[in-house]
Amino acid sequence: MTKQESRSTLNVNHDTQPTIDTGYVVGVDIGGTNLRLALADMDGVVVGKWSYSIVGVNGVDAVMSLICDGVERLLREVSAPRHTLKSIAVGAPGITDVNEGIVIATSYLMGWRDVPLRALLENAFHVPAAIDNDVNLAAIGESWAGAAKGTRDFVFLAIGTGIGAGIVLNGHPFHGENWAAGEIGYMLIPGTPETPCERGKPGALESMIGGEGIRTQWQSLWSADGTTLPKDLTATQIFDHALAGDSLAQTILRQSARLLSLAIYNMSLVLNCPLFVLGGSVGTHPELCTATQNMLELWNMRRQPQLTRSALGADAQLMGALRLALDTIASRSSHLAG
Amino acid sequence: MTKQESRSTLNVNHDTQPTIDTGYVVGVDIGGTNLRLALADMDGVVVGKWSYSIVGVNGVDAVMSLICDGVERLLREVSAPRHTLKSIAVGAPGITDVNEGIVIATSYLMGWRDVPLRALLENAFHVPAAIDNDVNLAAIGESWAGAAKGTRDFVFLAIGTGIGAGIVLNGHPFHGENWAAGEIGYMLIPGTPETPCERGKPGALESMIGGEGIRTQWQSLWSADGTTLPKDLTATQIFDHALAGDSLAQTILRQSARLLSLAIYNMSLVLNCPLFVLGGSVGTHPELCTATQNMLELWNMRRQPQLTRSALGADAQLMGALRLALDTIASRSSHLAG
Repeated sequence: MTKQESRSTLNVNHDTQPTIDTGYVVGVDIGGTNLRLALADMDGVVVGKWSYSIVGVNGVDAVMSLICDGVERLLREVSAPRHTLKSIAVGAPGITDVNEGIVIATSYLMGWRDVPLRALLENAFHVPAAIDNDVNLAAIGESWAGAAKGTRDFVFLAIGTGIGAGIVLNGHPFHGENWAAGEIGYMLIPGTPETPCERGKPGALESMIGGEGIRTQWQSLWSADGTTLPKDLTATQIFDHALAGDSLAQTILRQSARLLSLAIYNMSLVLNCPLFVLGGSVGTHPELCTATQNMLELWNMRRQPQLTRSALGADAQLMGALRLALDTIASRSSHLAG
Repeated sequence: MTKQESRSTLNVNHDTQPTIDTGYVVGVDIGGTNLRLALADMDGVVVGKWSYSIVGVNGVDAVMSLICDGVERLLREVSAPRHTLKSIAVGAPGITDVNEGIVIATSYLMGWRDVPLRALLENAFHVPAAIDNDVNLAAIGESWAGAAKGTRDFVFLAIGTGIGAGIVLNGHPFHGENWAAGEIGYMLIPGTPETPCERGKPGALESMIGGEGIRTQWQSLWSADGTTLPKDLTATQIFDHALAGDSLAQTILRQSARLLSLAIYNMSLVLNCPLFVLGGSVGTHPELCTATQNMLELWNMRRQPQLTRSALGADAQLMGALRLALDTIASRSSHLAG
């Protein structure tokens, strides 16, 4: 318990007092470094959050066990009995078959293949469960309570360690034939390497403007003569230094913004979407957003899409999971009862 | 009339004898060089076709007048009274607001802007009318009676003089926010020029692999030492010569196939569509299709989309227009009656 305690964070809003008939839903985000849970009432008001560092934890059983712990703790903190839990929804970091409730594949870090996550959740909690790809859930979150409120067609572009797009069409996530729509980390544009996909390796675009890609670009251009900054910086640190005036950092920022603008431009030609929301730790950096917007204008499109930063930040996935959990009560209750 | 006769072609199937109660629909394709009409019965069986060269004809009034002539002639040829016409649908070569029935913009050749084509048709024929972009109609045609029968999600890729995509999602054309989805002639990929859009000029991808683009590429690489072929060849002639063994023609074919494979790859990452149908005079060339399929396999996608040639060829738009005309009877009759 000591180790677990040190890795976990619990926040509960004790202003919201539950009544005996209150129901709750749980949203879960399985991230690259943290497992995060939120408990909300039936109006979607968040009453508690719990997060736990899962660096080095990648087994399905271990993650499921942590989710169970987290749910118990959140319910306990608001003195809610177990039967008040009405549904749970989980965002998985990979290609997810929403209909069958199966995580088809996650990145090499997690290594999941064909995990029946929805069934595991329903067996554990005896409530309706739903799963989706984490970027799609972030898009749902922004659509429900963030930067895309009221917009029926938009793209949520997540740039963290990796890069992916959650496409919302007509108010619903668009998944594609094999649940792989929006896998734009592999996009080939002027300036990306022109190499075939390799399983377990970042795609061409991701290798340039994913968080790790930007870091690698920095290191490959770095020299002691070229900058006074250290060789080991994160993408967001590099963008901070670009704002502060470092010329090498500005070069990396410009290159990243140029490639990102090209990816958005190409997606926009295909989808003719009015709005792109930038999310993820790298994607929400204000310097990247501004520089990308400027680059995008250079391409002189007939209809310039609007570019904006995520309003929910790191909570986007979690809010999307809560929205999905709320929607799941109606759509799945009858199925379970049958 | 003499001039018109020399430019027009009429084909009627006299095996199909109309009864007094037979109804008909008309589909129209306004192409770059020909205006084409088809008359079909209520089962969608084509009973007559009419085409007319419109090279040099680009005024709205002139085109409308020709459509009226064509409809009259087709009805007369099957001895059908005017009241048997139940609906008409027209494919326009440009960005088309399907809801309002307005052609927003066509290419510089035609130069139409904000033409209320649906209202013009309804005023002329007093039947429900509908319009859509010609590439979208070709996609509908292939979906109804061609290479995409039974496929709910696919992309029809038209390569003629220009290049455009008709995206079908969940069985319906996907239009985008401003009716401009699928405008992929502007796509920027490794190997295209990296220049902003210019109004009235072909886009980056179109300038390389549209019919005119391929012709220009040939001319720019051509030298009397490099090939025994003439400097002035069409795209399809160049591809024919590639099959026959000319090495410069093979270079052009490879370059075209490589760029087309990259465009399909990028679209596929966004949409995760299982099928791409190649249409248009250049797109249906078998050598281009085979070479592009081979290139596409090099990119090593998780799910390789199937690539196939249009089954309807030059009739794809016309068949899509007929399908739209048939669908329009139900959806628009009540509107007109109101």
